Amino acid sequence: MAESARRGRGGGGAARRAERNAVSFETAKFIERNIPNFEILTEEAMQVIETNAEIVLEEVGVNFLDNPAAIQRWRDAGAEIDGERVRIPRGLARKLCATAPSQYTQHARNPARNVVVGGNNLVLAPVYGPPFVRDAVGGRRYATMEDFNKFVKLGYMSKWLHHSGGTVCEPTDVPVNKRHLDMLYALMTLSDKPFMGSVTEPSRAQDSVDMCKILFGEEFVRDNTVMTSLININSPMTFDDVMMGALEVYAQNNQACIISPFIVGGAMAPVSVAGTLTQVLAETLAGIAYSQLIRPGAPVIMGAFVTSIDMNSGAPTFGTPEAAHITYGAGQLARRLNLPYRSAGSFCGSKLPDAQAAYETANSLNMGLLAGVNFMLHSCGWLEGGLVSSFEKFVMDADQLGTLHHLARGVEIDENAQAMDAIREVGPGGHYLGCAHTQNNFKTAFWKSDLLDYKPFETWEDEGARDTQALATLRVEKMLADYQAPALDPAIREALDAFVAQKKSAEPDSFM
Amino acid sequence: MAESARRGRGGGGAARRAERNAVSFETAKFIERNIPNFEILTEEAMQVIETNAEIVLEEVGVNFLDNPAAIQRWRDAGAEIDGERVRIPRGLARKLCATAPSQYTQHARNPARNVVVGGNNLVLAPVYGPPFVRDAVGGRRYATMEDFNKFVKLGYMSKWLHHSGGTVCEPTDVPVNKRHLDMLYALMTLSDKPFMGSVTEPSRAQDSVDMCKILFGEEFVRDNTVMTSLININSPMTFDDVMMGALEVYAQNNQACIISPFIVGGAMAPVSVAGTLTQVLAETLAGIAYSQLIRPGAPVIMGAFVTSIDMNSGAPTFGTPEAAHITYGAGQLARRLNLPYRSAGSFCGSKLPDAQAAYETANSLNMGLLAGVNFMLHSCGWLEGGLVSSFEKFVMDADQLGTLHHLARGVEIDENAQAMDAIREVGPGGHYLGCAHTQNNFKTAFWKSDLLDYKPFETWEDEGARDTQALATLRVEKMLADYQAPALDPAIREALDAFVAQKKSAEPDSFM
Repeated sequence: MAESARRGRGGGGAARRAERNAVSFETAKFIERNIPNFEILTEEAMQVIETNAEIVLEEVGVNFLDNPAAIQRWRDAGAEIDGERVRIPRGLARKLCATAPSQYTQHARNPARNVVVGGNNLVLAPVYGPPFVRDAVGGRRYATMEDFNKFVKLGYMSKWLHHSGGTVCEPTDVPVNKRHLDMLYALMTLSDKPFMGSVTEPSRAQDSVDMCKILFGEEFVRDNTVMTSLININSPMTFDDVMMGALEVYAQNNQACIISPFIVGGAMAPVSVAGTLTQVLAETLAGIAYSQLIRPGAPVIMGAFVTSIDMNSGAPTFGTPEAAHITYGAGQLARRLNLPYRSAGSFCGSKLPDAQAAYETANSLNMGLLAGVNFMLHSCGWLEGGLVSSFEKFVMDADQLGTLHHLARGVEIDENAQAMDAIREVGPGGHYLGCAHTQNNFKTAFWKSDLLDYKPFETWEDEGARDTQALATLRVEKMLADYQAPALDPAIREALDAFVAQKKSAEPDSFM
Repeated sequence: MAESARRGRGGGGAARRAERNAVSFETAKFIERNIPNFEILTEEAMQVIETNAEIVLEEVGVNFLDNPAAIQRWRDAGAEIDGERVRIPRGLARKLCATAPSQYTQHARNPARNVVVGGNNLVLAPVYGPPFVRDAVGGRRYATMEDFNKFVKLGYMSKWLHHSGGTVCEPTDVPVNKRHLDMLYALMTLSDKPFMGSVTEPSRAQDSVDMCKILFGEEFVRDNTVMTSLININSPMTFDDVMMGALEVYAQNNQACIISPFIVGGAMAPVSVAGTLTQVLAETLAGIAYSQLIRPGAPVIMGAFVTSIDMNSGAPTFGTPEAAHITYGAGQLARRLNLPYRSAGSFCGSKLPDAQAAYETANSLNMGLLAGVNFMLHSCGWLEGGLVSSFEKFVMDADQLGTLHHLARGVEIDENAQAMDAIREVGPGGHYLGCAHTQNNFKTAFWKSDLLDYKPFETWEDEGARDTQALATLRVEKMLADYQAPALDPAIREALDAFVAQKKSAEPDSFM
């Protein structure tokens, strides 16, 4: 489908009326930071880590598994090859990374919702990957496609979310080899925010590209980035053929990838912060360099998914100070590479959306903002170490994301902000509520929660003494009741329907 | 009681045996930051705010109510007096503040628990002031002396709390004019951590000093700071005679005071961050200058208790981005004055120790650490906008304070931290859990919660699917069951008993 067809809104009068009547829910612009980054590493520490990462690449190297073409690409680029082991001479990976753009625009089908990834920006996307869902009514259960659709709707309606994400939960009731089609269809039709593609097989990455060509037009996809997808490194130092195959498809098509170590500290990386940062840098240098071997200039994000571990139980732990050290430090290393940076999220280990979940999440969200993260996957809805997508926590976290927007604005210092007339007017012992400056500014002065309780104690008690989870249950119900789909050209919808039907009929179901 | 009597442990053999058998609970050293401060104001913004604060002091001035001696002191210092209004010429307040020390040691009766307030340090003290308490068993109710004692015990046993605080809750079952005696007695006997004095009447401040002379010895108190007490400014720009009377007693005795605006933004200060910071600076300059008029060199802390407001309900709101802006900014202003800084805490508006409480608290604790706060009152146990001291939230927050300790350590970069041998040993595709570096370092590598749940889902479910509050209820019960009082010279205890009894009998009860 050509761009002109999309822009031309090919449908008839009924379709145009449907578009005109569609409700558009407010979405904030991605965060443009007007505050400094928090930098925890000294210049000397960064140099030590950078030097060590180069030593690791040269002496230890990385494995590219079951991927002879990748091995050949590395050989041609000047790496030393030993079977599947790739040893990269000092400086080579960093040099190859230099062709990756420092920022890129990911287009949404609603251009008002395009995001610019990199620079001072922070783009927020929801939880990714859990096989389970939880809500107060239904408890914890395997996720279905119906759950997936609900999360996409909630993401579409969440003011502070800029991005729909991808696998907001794993719809286990759809065959493994076909669920990417249903997920992409939902992301494309139930929301008009930007989204992620499939990475579970190279062919599914290709399906993602092909569906985008229907949605955006072939020419548009050739010239623009319309997906940002998640490529995990199999830490330590291993790049498997499935993930690399998906990366190859996306890079060839100029689509963006997050290239991200997945590290539980002490298990997949050294137990120390500096050691972990060394490995994170070595792994991302190798992965990003490889993306540039596929297509110089392909957009990529340097990722760092790093948690600590409870050494008693072996369980991953979240919102911890060690994760903060790594997140701050990796941000500094990404900026020295002049690359967009992905880290942090609504991480928690708790089984419930309770105080533990909120402490851990708030610790991580705050560090994410201050660490200079450019793309925050998992920014809402994550529960139980990533095993569960929680409906209540999705809206609870999504509300907290508003605090990041306001914090990032920084401090205004113009004459109105100085408020000297107000101080003179009110004077000692006075009250500011009624003064002109307050009246003129109160509507925009303070971040306002759409969820949290500020009522007088007696009112709150009369209304049932609800905790945050109970308030969130009501908010989820209300949002889903109010949901209306964004307008979509019926011709595009039909073409997507046809693509999905054809692909589904082409091979038998598999749940493996 | 002379210092020699205290040091000589005047009691007999039984007392000495009791001391030897006393259990000492571990307390972490106050935080010594090895990380930078987060600075949100530009140099230009700071200069604007500093200039404006001087203009406010000179043109608008401050009120010292019902305090002719204070007015006379200001007149003698060169201020322009108009009734109770004190207008302070530009530069005078800042000049007077220069005699205040940049840091001071507050002594505890156990010298191992002395704290140094100022510099890169952060001292953590619990919630202060609530008239209500709450726990899961008894619900919300007026606080009693029994509750007070329990909170002092919990504070004594909390590893990450360095300071007992003061009015951990307001014991409403003791007459207003006598409860300070019971509170001080509890702080002196149930814990050996440093504590705060009474500020509700100048005479009660004097009682606090007199009881310290019994506990520490008269000579010791003359030469050392043994209390840090909370002097609130009646914002905007008003200094009442009760608080100033208490400040005068403490400053005359070389005891430390936090001099702190108490501001709900938009009500007691302008609705803008820059305007509020201007007022905070003007008020603290005036208050600290006044402390130095009483006694040059008296130790003081520049305080900023600032919250935002829900403009719909008028309720104060906590853990908000505007409070963070002010907390970061006021920290920069305090450092330019070379003064210790008090702000942040376990602030929340929630009625329950739920997710809202934890989001708001974590936002505030994180900003407190990064803002360079030196003394954090309310660092645990605060609930419902400060109306309630929560037993569960006390231990929940106190556990989270451990994350601040670890975060503040910064990133080690020595050879062991670099872990290059571990990376070489494990290699691509390996596992770090068993390697020598992990075995040598895992015990100290990660912060470890004493409360949060990291168990496998099935175990957690079998054990009753407890949320954080339920786990905290158990921890409170366990701590109070395990409590043992620190040793105290029986002669000192008798002298304190006698002082309290004499004072209580000297005047009738008052509940006003």
